[in-house]
Amino acid sequence: MASPFPLPDPMRRALDLAYAAQQAGEVPIGAVVTLGGRIIGEGENRNRRDKDPTAHAEMVAIREASRRIGDFRLTGCDLWVTLEPCPMCAGAISHARIARLYYAVSDPKGGALEQGPRLFAQPQCLHRPEVYGGLAEAEASALLRGFFAARR
Amino acid sequence: MASPFPLPDPMRRALDLAYAAQQAGEVPIGAVVTLGGRIIGEGENRNRRDKDPTAHAEMVAIREASRRIGDFRLTGCDLWVTLEPCPMCAGAISHARIARLYYAVSDPKGGALEQGPRLFAQPQCLHRPEVYGGLAEAEASALLRGFFAARR
Repeated sequence: MASPFPLPDPMRRALDLAYAAQQAGEVPIGAVVTLGGRIIGEGENRNRRDKDPTAHAEMVAIREASRRIGDFRLTGCDLWVTLEPCPMCAGAISHARIARLYYAVSDPKGGALEQGPRLFAQPQCLHRPEVYGGLAEAEASALLRGFFAARR
Repeated sequence: MASPFPLPDPMRRALDLAYAAQQAGEVPIGAVVTLGGRIIGEGENRNRRDKDPTAHAEMVAIREASRRIGDFRLTGCDLWVTLEPCPMCAGAISHARIARLYYAVSDPKGGALEQGPRLFAQPQCLHRPEVYGGLAEAEASALLRGFFAARR
């Protein structure tokens, strides 16, 4: 069921970045890091273009934000992403000390939070952000469905 | 108990990189990617120097190897690292399609393979490397103990 509330600007921007990734032949996922409501890092999936298996949207956005503020800890920052993060990205979110994580839609196949390893629920996990899922399920899942249908 | 066999060259190199990280004030962890026995990527922890929460030794080595061979999949490549990988790095190892993973010593606090999320045992995991642990327990754990003792 779609939310009756307008989508927050950072999630709208993350969806725009996901569209841009799709146009470039990448998996359509986008992410944004904000601090006090201002965008300080953004990214989209760049695996193919950058020849980099670590270049998921969240990783690109986190690395840009860290460079920009000159700290490897993004204390007090929020991350907005169009898909539930995978184990690699969830690990990076924890290392970066992200305060709040917002994602558009769950990923039953590769998500690491609601399913599978449930990383933030592991006793080992040293930092857990607040997590808000399902913010833009319709938009994000339509994007992904379209992408994978076109590849078949 | 120390192995009676000499340490493979890539693990020796990974330990040298861990020492280099320590000298630079970083957590002493090193990693090397090999293809057909030849080193095609290497890295050490660079979180502080690069202001990058994702700059673990394994990530740096994987990104260098991918750039060098011009492919975001490191099919047929092996990764050698001085410590059991964390969830972020284990996720990247799987994304990169690393064939064999060798690590020097387990990490009861942050390891993602023998403990905690046991990522490669998750049904979601799309690619699991062969895993060989405990190759240089004495050397790698002495390095880490020394580092954390000096920080206290």
